[in-house]
Amino acid sequence: MHTVIDFIHTSRDRYISALTEYLAIPSISALPDHVDDVARCARWTADELGRVGLENVRLIETGGNPVVYADWLHAPGAPTILFYGHYDVQPVDPLDQWTSPPFEATVRAGEIYARGAVDDKGQIFMHFKAVEACLKQTGRLPVNMKLILEGEEEIGSTHLDGFVRDHQSELAANVVIISDSPMFDRGVPSLCYGLRGLSYFQIDLRGTTSDLHSGSFGGAVANPGFVLAQVLAQMKDRAGRVKIPGFYDDVRPLLDEEREAFARLPFNEQQYRTDLGAPRLFGERDYTTLERVWARPTFEVNGLLSGFTGDGAKTVIPAVAMAKVSMRLVPDQEPDTIAEIFETYLRKVTPKTVTLDVTRLHGGKPWMTELDNPFVQAAGRAIERGFGRAPVFNREGGSIPVVSTFQEVLGLPTLLFGVGLPDENAHAPNEKLNLGNFLNGIIASTFLYEEIGKLTG
Amino acid sequence: MHTVIDFIHTSRDRYISALTEYLAIPSISALPDHVDDVARCARWTADELGRVGLENVRLIETGGNPVVYADWLHAPGAPTILFYGHYDVQPVDPLDQWTSPPFEATVRAGEIYARGAVDDKGQIFMHFKAVEACLKQTGRLPVNMKLILEGEEEIGSTHLDGFVRDHQSELAANVVIISDSPMFDRGVPSLCYGLRGLSYFQIDLRGTTSDLHSGSFGGAVANPGFVLAQVLAQMKDRAGRVKIPGFYDDVRPLLDEEREAFARLPFNEQQYRTDLGAPRLFGERDYTTLERVWARPTFEVNGLLSGFTGDGAKTVIPAVAMAKVSMRLVPDQEPDTIAEIFETYLRKVTPKTVTLDVTRLHGGKPWMTELDNPFVQAAGRAIERGFGRAPVFNREGGSIPVVSTFQEVLGLPTLLFGVGLPDENAHAPNEKLNLGNFLNGIIASTFLYEEIGKLTG
Repeated sequence: MHTVIDFIHTSRDRYISALTEYLAIPSISALPDHVDDVARCARWTADELGRVGLENVRLIETGGNPVVYADWLHAPGAPTILFYGHYDVQPVDPLDQWTSPPFEATVRAGEIYARGAVDDKGQIFMHFKAVEACLKQTGRLPVNMKLILEGEEEIGSTHLDGFVRDHQSELAANVVIISDSPMFDRGVPSLCYGLRGLSYFQIDLRGTTSDLHSGSFGGAVANPGFVLAQVLAQMKDRAGRVKIPGFYDDVRPLLDEEREAFARLPFNEQQYRTDLGAPRLFGERDYTTLERVWARPTFEVNGLLSGFTGDGAKTVIPAVAMAKVSMRLVPDQEPDTIAEIFETYLRKVTPKTVTLDVTRLHGGKPWMTELDNPFVQAAGRAIERGFGRAPVFNREGGSIPVVSTFQEVLGLPTLLFGVGLPDENAHAPNEKLNLGNFLNGIIASTFLYEEIGKLTG
Repeated sequence: MHTVIDFIHTSRDRYISALTEYLAIPSISALPDHVDDVARCARWTADELGRVGLENVRLIETGGNPVVYADWLHAPGAPTILFYGHYDVQPVDPLDQWTSPPFEATVRAGEIYARGAVDDKGQIFMHFKAVEACLKQTGRLPVNMKLILEGEEEIGSTHLDGFVRDHQSELAANVVIISDSPMFDRGVPSLCYGLRGLSYFQIDLRGTTSDLHSGSFGGAVANPGFVLAQVLAQMKDRAGRVKIPGFYDDVRPLLDEEREAFARLPFNEQQYRTDLGAPRLFGERDYTTLERVWARPTFEVNGLLSGFTGDGAKTVIPAVAMAKVSMRLVPDQEPDTIAEIFETYLRKVTPKTVTLDVTRLHGGKPWMTELDNPFVQAAGRAIERGFGRAPVFNREGGSIPVVSTFQEVLGLPTLLFGVGLPDENAHAPNEKLNLGNFLNGIIASTFLYEEIGKLTG
């Protein structure tokens, strides 16, 4: 491997130059004006995959922006990696808050600034260069690889689910690798092994045909704004525990080793609280903050609307009241089961003085890879070799829908092997990527292929 | 009195003709374009007061629209009536829903249709004509009278409170008469002896500096939308009883005779529920609907706003949550006392996980005249003589701030002697006044002066 690592170290300037070219393409999938740029970026990506030595490069139509596909399948007996990433980027508004133009990559103090630097062009380019280093210096990869790069991640991966289902057999592999997430903290490389799911609803209560004068009618009828408060208040107790019967039945308990690992992380609760501007932190009793956001389910009010909300005083009894509510789910909660027990409980606690409509707006499964999964262990060793420090194993509170798709449709575990930093402004002005992490990431990626190659395919 | 009554009966056409002229002046106080019309209407009112034989007629500047004043003070030993009404009217939008033009009074099927017909020109004109009949036919009034007609009632009586305070001694009297409210129902003349007061607040809760992603942060901090629901839910129990400690301490219990009188009223609860479109009626246990809206205090949510309220699903933990809430008060609750115990309780039940701001937006005292007050009894006899049927004694759930002003500043009881009907569209298109009630009202007004004249001033 020495020649591979040396090659990477001596290629720094060439990498930055090519990445700058890649970042110059404004492949903003959300804006119709950039449809040609997105197409150009797909072609650039395909050309690059050919240049680094991958095979069977092609653009696959999806009904939306194309998926760029490539593979290298000459390691018989070794596992097959399915690498997933995206070549589209977020819009750049507000443009006036950028220190340098978003599509003219600029290096300042060891960081490369541009839209897409960390999300996700910089991180997929890191793998392109790892593949290149292996192929150019050793003539082969230690694993089989299939790569799919999509162009709609920033608009909800509209066509990806269908694409994966339509190409199920062609995408057969042993493990998925995604580099599209931050590490835990600066200098703390990490491997994310769990994500939460989601169950999202709108609740609409109606009390009367129209708003009523609170003087003339106050006292005679239920007030849907108040009933909504009563109903929502019954969803969690004072200690922050969700009261929906059966809600915790399928929650996989945190393992002692997970709790110990989380407790060892460099997490400053006081700083976290101050950064959020919260008077105090609050969550489910007997769990730490990291346990609460990574490994425990929640019930949240996302929105409330009823009656008069302008300046001053209007003496109205609202006719209707609306709430958006959602639950974050953890393994092994099922969104459909949760939706059913939630709706049943909601109907039970809503009084007959109002009519109730409940709408399911969104659902997504939680996801988790076992810590003792051999791919997870292999990735841990690769990160330690590449970054000189053993990774922390963390979970995330949010959702990445494609991870569930890969698990459900292809039956594959996923490695979330991200080298971004939490403050690198993905989706914000002055997006950037630390070049040290970028280079270490290329090296760690070659180790990752090597470690996975040692496993049985 | 026979000549007076005969005079009234034979003047019907002349009354309608003059009222039509009065109603033709678009004295809309809310619209700057009509400032000249309002001034013209004040002059017309003053001229009319002179024509009917009242004395000391003048316009008194208030800083806003003038108050029209007149008096007749030649009944030594008899009580003095302070008559209050207003010559301004509501806007007429939506104009296309009027069957005939709002400022061209039109008689159809015994009703006169025009903006101001019932609220309040028609009802004050009724007293002008009662005064005229007495003075023209008998040369005197059986009571002393002072009349004040304001031009800002429809915009919140901005300057009336100051006017009454500034002219406290000139307005000295024994009783206030206001004809600006409906009777209980068609064919059911009534005398309203109680109104509810009001205490209105805005509650603002803040959890964090900005909205948070409910995946990344859900579980770590309190959700102000949920906390707001928890806090509001603690304001009333399941039986509809307000839980603020001390809230009911000063509530004057309903007398047995009041409850019996309310129970005798022609009130169809099923029809009332159907008209409102409510799945069922709901209110404080052990009270009837009329008792709940007239004689019991309430706690209402008037508005709610927090987080994401658009279409679809946005996974946000709101930074802030806002509620407008108000309490209707009954004698002898004091708005200031209620505000204090409410704020104390609110602060006690709001957890320290959020910051709380509470703003007092409005307060108004409840009002009630004793049923055995001799003026109330006199008015009852006058209505029975004028309408051929003893009035029902009712209360109202809303507030009329000037009634509190007359009680507080001048120490006067008020008679709410209204001859409108509940469906006469005050503030709505096709406002109207029943001409039978108008004529009976003129006659009943002369009896009212006579009955009050029998009391000691």
